Amino acid sequence: MSNYVEMWKELGMDLETHDALCQVLPTAFGDMYLSQENRPEGMGFWDFVVSEIHGIRPSELIEAQKNGQKVFGTFCVYVPDEVVLAANGIVTGLCGGSQFWVPGGEKVLPKSTCPLIKASVGARLERTCPFFRIADMYVGETTCDGKKKAWEILGQDVPMHIMDMPQMKRPQDIEKWADEIKIFAKVVEDFTGNAITPEKLSEGIHVINERRKALKRVYDARKSKNIPISGKDALLMMQIAFFDDPVRCAEMANKLADELEQRNKDNVSVFPAGTKRILVTGTPMAIPNWKLHHLIETSGAAVVCEETCTGTRYFENLVDETKTTLEEQYAAIADRYMGINCACFTPNSGRVDDILRLAKEYDVDGVIDVNLKFCCLYDTEGYTVEKAMKDAGIPVLGIETDYTDEDAEQLRTRIEAFVEMLG
Amino acid sequence: MSNYVEMWKELGMDLETHDALCQVLPTAFGDMYLSQENRPEGMGFWDFVVSEIHGIRPSELIEAQKNGQKVFGTFCVYVPDEVVLAANGIVTGLCGGSQFWVPGGEKVLPKSTCPLIKASVGARLERTCPFFRIADMYVGETTCDGKKKAWEILGQDVPMHIMDMPQMKRPQDIEKWADEIKIFAKVVEDFTGNAITPEKLSEGIHVINERRKALKRVYDARKSKNIPISGKDALLMMQIAFFDDPVRCAEMANKLADELEQRNKDNVSVFPAGTKRILVTGTPMAIPNWKLHHLIETSGAAVVCEETCTGTRYFENLVDETKTTLEEQYAAIADRYMGINCACFTPNSGRVDDILRLAKEYDVDGVIDVNLKFCCLYDTEGYTVEKAMKDAGIPVLGIETDYTDEDAEQLRTRIEAFVEMLG
Repeated sequence: MSNYVEMWKELGMDLETHDALCQVLPTAFGDMYLSQENRPEGMGFWDFVVSEIHGIRPSELIEAQKNGQKVFGTFCVYVPDEVVLAANGIVTGLCGGSQFWVPGGEKVLPKSTCPLIKASVGARLERTCPFFRIADMYVGETTCDGKKKAWEILGQDVPMHIMDMPQMKRPQDIEKWADEIKIFAKVVEDFTGNAITPEKLSEGIHVINERRKALKRVYDARKSKNIPISGKDALLMMQIAFFDDPVRCAEMANKLADELEQRNKDNVSVFPAGTKRILVTGTPMAIPNWKLHHLIETSGAAVVCEETCTGTRYFENLVDETKTTLEEQYAAIADRYMGINCACFTPNSGRVDDILRLAKEYDVDGVIDVNLKFCCLYDTEGYTVEKAMKDAGIPVLGIETDYTDEDAEQLRTRIEAFVEMLG
Repeated sequence: MSNYVEMWKELGMDLETHDALCQVLPTAFGDMYLSQENRPEGMGFWDFVVSEIHGIRPSELIEAQKNGQKVFGTFCVYVPDEVVLAANGIVTGLCGGSQFWVPGGEKVLPKSTCPLIKASVGARLERTCPFFRIADMYVGETTCDGKKKAWEILGQDVPMHIMDMPQMKRPQDIEKWADEIKIFAKVVEDFTGNAITPEKLSEGIHVINERRKALKRVYDARKSKNIPISGKDALLMMQIAFFDDPVRCAEMANKLADELEQRNKDNVSVFPAGTKRILVTGTPMAIPNWKLHHLIETSGAAVVCEETCTGTRYFENLVDETKTTLEEQYAAIADRYMGINCACFTPNSGRVDDILRLAKEYDVDGVIDVNLKFCCLYDTEGYTVEKAMKDAGIPVLGIETDYTDEDAEQLRTRIEAFVEMLG
């Protein structure tokens, strides 16, 4: 990635520290990804993106900014990309998936904050993430205590808009979310200088729906008895979807889906017959957090579905495209997003329903419920999830982990025992 | 408290386990409270209440239930007592301030949940708190991730109503809170069978305002140069206010205030002249959590004010009593409650303003910012609070603790060093 040094310098990044990250990432990726056998050819695109992760997309974003577009950095699948697109804005994910950034976050946040939040804040404050340097505005939400309070610290450093999530899902809460979306739309209009019209919003909705459909095609292909793609590869596609141009993302996912569907016809599998099928549920896995998937897939099992924000929650359910007024469109967007079953809601019984449904659809042998350390929401909800799995006779393993490697061998022992028990 | 055994049995309590609590509490209270010198006579009432803490008020509540009144158990200073009173209901606090109940909570909640939540859930599930056995309905709120998710587990055991707190304080959020209060009022009306009229609500508002004024009089007396009452004693009054009849509470607090005002005229102090004055800010201290106050007041300093939910947040600001329609009254109630500066809001800059104001009003020498372990909200906000104190030149000590005694000596060392530094 060395030909991007000038760009990083201009972004005001801490080059020396960032260099340490650039040195370890290719090795980690090589060990975990490139060592896999018989990968789909379609993964070549994402391999390339990873090889230039802090270079290629950032340089596109900078180019777009030069042409007058604004870049919005977001942290959560509840922030509606449609609205940003409608004002000719661009949405990008932000760094947060590596232990590399955690100590920087711990300088201002309690140690007992989840690693995702600590890494995000650290990546910004330590100036080692180009996306965090590029974005013109940051859009936070009140989905959890840790993020909600972290925005106050981040907000001293960058312009932030916060969307207030309702914490329940009654009809009035969905209306409230529609109101929040309207407020956000106004902020986006003012910030970009572009008016959002029903036509523009319609286009935005369509683009994001097409991305959803494409990602879902890849996931649907994973329901096959053979396993056409590793969980790790599918996870990589999802992780990069948060950063990529949505039209290209859909195009690449559709191309991959074509290949996977052909593999299913040809009964091609990347795992030996009889490999146990695992559904992973729980907290999100931001790039380059591949730890759990790698452990599972080198312990005799395969991940065939992720019920996470970097999984089905990102693409399930479409926004109704038949609405023609802004008012109706915002309501339709609110409806779709409030269908996401995040543990931030009380109650969140829809998530258990989702897991049970997905376990059947993906024909899984067991469920691994993973919690990023100090995520109070998913940790507490784990009690309900694991109880529901036991009641349904689905083997379940609850795991808590962070971004360090310290617990890797202990986790491997537990995962191996779990997979063996499935046999 | 042995003459209440029959009542506890009828309440379905676990007598054997509860007995262990009954045996240790008097010793703890004797050591920490009765050993103090020159206490106000007015404290006799609260000493008596503590001596029969699981007997005297519970038996009153049971008597009221026999007369058709409903008892509402609440966990938070945001739940408006006024509304319950207007329907002839009774509000009671619930157990949650002792390590005794924590292991019970840890059976269903993550260990990394704050001790207050773990103790509350444990007290209910283990059947060792009469208030948790008596209440007819439980009113939760979405003030933090831990509580929000704990309600789902508690709700399997008891009837619960949840109020959805907005997480910000814009005009529309205050309106939303007024709507939540209206919804709650409907629930209370249905549950009690009593209609809430403007007259009844007016009465309820008045009673609770009078309690606020009385508690404030006691606090105002603590602003005096002499120190007429220990922080520990003031804390005890506040803790029991959550459980007591509000009219009696006001009467007793006013009586105590009379005595303290006379002490101020007579220049009577319970601490030697020159004792350093401490403002405690942070997480609530439910009865019998007297740990920090005891450590401070046996380390050469006195607590003169608590900017906590068991302190000023409970009584500051009155509800406007001039409104005559329910609609206006609910709006006035919402206004008053949304004036409470809890760390659950983002941002919560009003809290720093409060601390700075109180530090001046109570003429404090230093601030101790206390966090109950794993309270993400106050822990994260501590960064902002401590920075603001340093900027204002007010000495500040940040402390994190739980209900165990394990860290007591280490805390004492730090508090003593802090107090010495003030000198």
